[in-house]
Amino acid sequence: MKRFEKHIFVCENKRPEGHPKGCCADKNGVEVRAKFKKRLKELGLSPSMRSNAAGCLDACEHGVTVVIYPEQIWYGNVTVDDVEEIIQDHLIKNSPVERLKIQDEKFNKDKK
Amino acid sequence: MKRFEKHIFVCENKRPEGHPKGCCADKNGVEVRAKFKKRLKELGLSPSMRSNAAGCLDACEHGVTVVIYPEQIWYGNVTVDDVEEIIQDHLIKNSPVERLKIQDEKFNKDKK
Repeated sequence: MKRFEKHIFVCENKRPEGHPKGCCADKNGVEVRAKFKKRLKELGLSPSMRSNAAGCLDACEHGVTVVIYPEQIWYGNVTVDDVEEIIQDHLIKNSPVERLKIQDEKFNKDKK
Repeated sequence: MKRFEKHIFVCENKRPEGHPKGCCADKNGVEVRAKFKKRLKELGLSPSMRSNAAGCLDACEHGVTVVIYPEQIWYGNVTVDDVEEIIQDHLIKNSPVERLKIQDEKFNKDKK
């Protein structure tokens, strides 16, 4: 059995003020991760599920960016208010939240 | 197809000086990640493989700690000199480096 059933990485990367890409830290990445951590604990889902800080996930324009492993589902523009839905639907029911997903073609399109 | 074929998270967590747990930053976590990044680029493995900074992976006593997804293989006490072996054996040949693996039971034993 693997150590974590679900491992949630939340970008908390901080760029200098005024950087054109923006950054997840300025869009409440830290608060999003804190909410995951608090709720996973309250719901008894930790330690088999862990919310983890991540450096830049190279999806700044979609921030706050979250990626959940092992399934590698990407979420964009995640707010503190979205966390409960991701926990209830994706983590508990294994039904990813479609409205927040970053589609694979979006990543490909963004690549130069 | 998933965005990343391999996603390598390297703990770069920094604890205050003298903290009993120690921390990956003091054991060259930043340098380990930089080496992964440099070599993945040189070998043409990025962007389908990405080395990413991570906050505390809750395995401080095994630091520098590295976890590779989607397979969730954990490595401990990783040095800059170990990076090439992980890339060649695990990332390229899909043959994890046994001598560096943190065994699952080690995690369980450490839990209070």
